[in-house]
Amino acid sequence: MRKKYKAFNPPYRILMGPGPSNVPDSVMESLSKPVVGHLDPVFLSIMEEVQDMLRRVFMTKNHLTIPVSGTGSAGMEAALVNAIEQGDHVLVCISGVFGQRMCDIVERCGGILKKVETEWGTPIDPEQVQTALTEFPAKIVAIVHAETSTGVLQPLQDISNIVHEKDALLLVDAVTSLGGAPLKIDEWGIDICYSGTQKCLSCPPGLAPITFGPLAIEKLNRRSSKVQSWYLDMTMVQKYWGPDRVYHHTAPISMIYALREALRLVVEEGLADRWERHITHHHSLVQGLEQLGLKMLVDASYRTPMLNSVVIPSNVDDAVIRKRLLEEYNTEIGSGLGPLKGKIWRIGLMGHSCTRENVNHILSALKSLLAL
Amino acid sequence: MRKKYKAFNPPYRILMGPGPSNVPDSVMESLSKPVVGHLDPVFLSIMEEVQDMLRRVFMTKNHLTIPVSGTGSAGMEAALVNAIEQGDHVLVCISGVFGQRMCDIVERCGGILKKVETEWGTPIDPEQVQTALTEFPAKIVAIVHAETSTGVLQPLQDISNIVHEKDALLLVDAVTSLGGAPLKIDEWGIDICYSGTQKCLSCPPGLAPITFGPLAIEKLNRRSSKVQSWYLDMTMVQKYWGPDRVYHHTAPISMIYALREALRLVVEEGLADRWERHITHHHSLVQGLEQLGLKMLVDASYRTPMLNSVVIPSNVDDAVIRKRLLEEYNTEIGSGLGPLKGKIWRIGLMGHSCTRENVNHILSALKSLLAL
Repeated sequence: MRKKYKAFNPPYRILMGPGPSNVPDSVMESLSKPVVGHLDPVFLSIMEEVQDMLRRVFMTKNHLTIPVSGTGSAGMEAALVNAIEQGDHVLVCISGVFGQRMCDIVERCGGILKKVETEWGTPIDPEQVQTALTEFPAKIVAIVHAETSTGVLQPLQDISNIVHEKDALLLVDAVTSLGGAPLKIDEWGIDICYSGTQKCLSCPPGLAPITFGPLAIEKLNRRSSKVQSWYLDMTMVQKYWGPDRVYHHTAPISMIYALREALRLVVEEGLADRWERHITHHHSLVQGLEQLGLKMLVDASYRTPMLNSVVIPSNVDDAVIRKRLLEEYNTEIGSGLGPLKGKIWRIGLMGHSCTRENVNHILSALKSLLAL
Repeated sequence: MRKKYKAFNPPYRILMGPGPSNVPDSVMESLSKPVVGHLDPVFLSIMEEVQDMLRRVFMTKNHLTIPVSGTGSAGMEAALVNAIEQGDHVLVCISGVFGQRMCDIVERCGGILKKVETEWGTPIDPEQVQTALTEFPAKIVAIVHAETSTGVLQPLQDISNIVHEKDALLLVDAVTSLGGAPLKIDEWGIDICYSGTQKCLSCPPGLAPITFGPLAIEKLNRRSSKVQSWYLDMTMVQKYWGPDRVYHHTAPISMIYALREALRLVVEEGLADRWERHITHHHSLVQGLEQLGLKMLVDASYRTPMLNSVVIPSNVDDAVIRKRLLEEYNTEIGSGLGPLKGKIWRIGLMGHSCTRENVNHILSALKSLLAL
């Protein structure tokens, strides 16, 4: 018997959680352009454009700058498995869920792990890194730029200096910051950096932009063992994205079309204007939340503009409010993760979702729902 | 200075290579439906439908049947890294590129590898497996069902019996066969099987359907070490695809929409009718090619219907013909891989690309180009 499945029509949600963000129409349209082969000359030229635009958005000249064929977490894994060989000393800075996840992957790579930790909701102090590195011969220091679980924007410049004084490589998670806050790969001396498409680039989830600088490439080429993931092995993947176009795996064609258009929109707006838009609406949102009597989790000096962690008042039921927001206002915000579950909401203002209208909308909705 | 990038309009190609295949309009339309969050109740019900339909298409009751968030090669890696622990004996059957790729991954997993090989263009003989297993205590036997590099359809039933007599698990690559030729996971006793979306399912590339049977789950649960890939770790991924919906990584929402629609079309057509359509057009194609004086690489008893390997006549320039097909006929066919490079063409009749019109079209184009 053949069961009948109906067509499906997901509702248009106002996406103000920790990602995905809303996707511009032209990106949606790109998704459904005709699929061509992954070795078609037409596709090869699209790949070049994507790499060129990714370099602009990452502010880097790094040749090996590509989208990994998986979501942001695949980017994290790609960065770590390529950087780490069994027995390498790796220092991971933890201020939330994504730092923890890095530790898990480092251990799976056979890295010797040391952790530097800070209270969730606060950034890592460069001195912590300095101290840790005096006694731990790290080859790699890994840190999250915008910690999506807390809403902390981690300053990187001082830490980068400390890391390079010790001849280690700096590996940065920029899943949430790329395209929404300043991130200057070359100027700041970041050796490896990965991101996701579904946050401030406002492309659907499915790809992970990644970039490897000269020191990272040197370490990659000096490896005495194969990268433990075949799928994410940059020594092989780069030959498909390089002049030889050696087939490795079939590229996710449609997603790369979408990323091309999403990047085109970022370049068209300009990075500086885009960062300013994120800051402006972030300030309005915070001001409005504070006028409602709500408190931010993170100190004003370290807030990510694109992800706003709001402390849930003690008399309010987290899940009920989020459910009503979704059902009555068609609006998604994020819950807290780990120790912050039930304690904060995470309100995203990412890329295409970062608008004055959305700020006004969420403030007005929260005002009604909290009866403030 | 802001560089201007233009909108892009890839041409509509007739995709008759080894994948991707052409994508039906309704699948394209699904791709661009509004993105919702990966924990949105609407999305959770789509996930359930996708799992339900995948089970029908794989012909299995396996609970752990999901799309991996990566292309077919990520499916291969997911199957192997979850199945293998350091020191496990793994027998890999090689009759082409994809068997070789499995070996590479087995070694990266720390598996103890033994190979059973056959000439490219011929299938593995069950006796080879039988013999190999008398002296090699394999926990896993890995084999490709439809070898995309040669066009051989590997019979599996006898090999499955041999493998299970030895208490090993059977791991099958069905990237090219799923939805185009009989593949009966439960009936044939396949323990782990993965596929891709861009072949006979005619969804764009980007996801890898995978299924784990009870014995595979038992081995997974008995592991004494973590799966070496965090991203592909089924002990974690299954908690997101299971009743608890524990966040693991952001699902590639739009691609899963597309897969849902592609699977809906497969279920609507019916597996038996779909297999028959592939056989019918395959026979017409072979007949037509032989009338043109061309020879098939593979013996008639072992041909994959969806991928037809044609021997390139010695006086013909492989690259020139493929280039002219692409430029003058807007049609893609595949070149040979590895030792078959320059020796064969691979003509795909996969899913939506498997039509009488396409058979007539490619025969007529080859007739003109080869001036036969």
